[in-house]
Amino acid sequence: MSVFTPVPEAALAEWLKQYAIGRLVELKGISAGVQNSNFFVTTTLGRYVLTLFEDIPRAELPYYLHLMAHLSRHGLPAPGPSANRDNEYLGTLQERPAVLVVRLAGTSVMKPGVRHCAHIGAMLAGLHLAGQSYGRRQENPRGHAWREATAQAVRDFLPEDERRLLDSELAFQRQHTELALPCGAIHGDLFRDNVLWDVGDSGEERIGGVIDFYFAGFDALLFDVAVTVNDWCASANGGLDPQRTEALLAAYHAERPFSAAEQAAWPAMLRAAALRFWLSRAADFYLPRSGEMVLVKDPEEYRNILELRRQGAPALPT
Amino acid sequence: MSVFTPVPEAALAEWLKQYAIGRLVELKGISAGVQNSNFFVTTTLGRYVLTLFEDIPRAELPYYLHLMAHLSRHGLPAPGPSANRDNEYLGTLQERPAVLVVRLAGTSVMKPGVRHCAHIGAMLAGLHLAGQSYGRRQENPRGHAWREATAQAVRDFLPEDERRLLDSELAFQRQHTELALPCGAIHGDLFRDNVLWDVGDSGEERIGGVIDFYFAGFDALLFDVAVTVNDWCASANGGLDPQRTEALLAAYHAERPFSAAEQAAWPAMLRAAALRFWLSRAADFYLPRSGEMVLVKDPEEYRNILELRRQGAPALPT
Repeated sequence: MSVFTPVPEAALAEWLKQYAIGRLVELKGISAGVQNSNFFVTTTLGRYVLTLFEDIPRAELPYYLHLMAHLSRHGLPAPGPSANRDNEYLGTLQERPAVLVVRLAGTSVMKPGVRHCAHIGAMLAGLHLAGQSYGRRQENPRGHAWREATAQAVRDFLPEDERRLLDSELAFQRQHTELALPCGAIHGDLFRDNVLWDVGDSGEERIGGVIDFYFAGFDALLFDVAVTVNDWCASANGGLDPQRTEALLAAYHAERPFSAAEQAAWPAMLRAAALRFWLSRAADFYLPRSGEMVLVKDPEEYRNILELRRQGAPALPT
Repeated sequence: MSVFTPVPEAALAEWLKQYAIGRLVELKGISAGVQNSNFFVTTTLGRYVLTLFEDIPRAELPYYLHLMAHLSRHGLPAPGPSANRDNEYLGTLQERPAVLVVRLAGTSVMKPGVRHCAHIGAMLAGLHLAGQSYGRRQENPRGHAWREATAQAVRDFLPEDERRLLDSELAFQRQHTELALPCGAIHGDLFRDNVLWDVGDSGEERIGGVIDFYFAGFDALLFDVAVTVNDWCASANGGLDPQRTEALLAAYHAERPFSAAEQAAWPAMLRAAALRFWLSRAADFYLPRSGEMVLVKDPEEYRNILELRRQGAPALPT
């Protein structure tokens, strides 16, 4: 997206008086993201990202904000939201729910290597372990029920062969939803553009921060692993690169060993994760929301990934 | 100090299993600080500082740790401690209370300029504002009562002229303890070596983090300003540099305006802050604790600063 809701400097300067982070120096819109308005905010005290929520219901926001705070508090590289002087994370600006988050250093790596994937695997396992003590619970907003509903909404727009693919995959997934897998808070959208890498003193790249927790929710941890592998370990043609896949899974497994049930569920889970992004992109494509939408991602990429994962998957480490 | 308590790698690796921050990669002792054992800890997930507390009573530690977390949560550049999987900040390692804190980037600036001092003033005001909503309370461990007690403990070791200086200053300070000044959580030790500066994208130095909150406590906010000015704005001879002093105080005043009572109390407060460090250094010098103490700071520096502040002080901005 681009910025949906404009924020005048004077309104922001006034709003910042509710916080203890100094006075406004600079405000700049950010043209990235798909469902919120984001801004870089520099104050006399530091650098922050301001997010105005455009269509996430206000009641669902505390789950995300407190999860970010919880992970940050456990030493994970997640930005904690900044509380105002009344100790509240969530404020209101331009009639929208609004939050300030400390701006992290670093940039995304869009062509990750084996070492990046190992770092991501270890970090994702840490996120899942720390999430086990998170007290709030909210269903994965892109979980099984959402996939069923969205499939019905987009089905009639699809060409015949894609409709057959969808029906076949939905039938397959319905047989795999009852497995008892380890569950907890998942990020849900740990794509390459949601991780910032920072260069350390030794010149080595490290994870500086994970951003965009607004698809987080309670679900099978393995679903999160599958979403992550499908993005970080895909080759240009959508197939899984064996070295990067093995590095990510081995690093994860070293922190949180996969269970036997997870071993069995893995091939279906890679498909469920591919289906989730095919469906969300198809919905954005065929059922665009009104308003300015600059960034509509191609649904074909994840239809192709789904077809490839249906042909088989590498085993999890044991 | 140097490291007081050695930590074997195997013991730390085992202890880290209580956390969600990955496995131990490297452990290195830090030879700085005066009352704790500190280590750089690198894990598969990130970089942390491990602190083992040598002589702060365990019951006093939650005040410091939760204050750091509170400030971090409010967007201040303070490192929040990392909670373990049981959501606890404070653990036990080698029979000592122990805490992990995310390691901040940046280095100390020992010859600050006017711009550094303006940043420090704004940040200190933000720290005081955010601290107003901190729910815990613990007296400043180097407050008036401590100064009286420590003066009695070191008095007989001092040469005649210093003893006269001490008696005179104590008598003066007793007349100035009853002023009703704005109070709250103070850092208490915001010296140059407790602030790390980071270089931003634009090449400008920014405060990357404030460390060492283990002299924090509830006291007059103006005492904290005086401690800070005495260190950041002093020339080589101990006198206050007019430009740096004005920059720090103006930046603070812009965020939290000084009250009339604070204007009146300022000269005495600069003296109280100088007295506090003269006394702690004299105590370390004349009454050294047993054990390895590498770093004993010279008490003369702050006796000189006290004498200079007794000759007068610049006014606070109005």
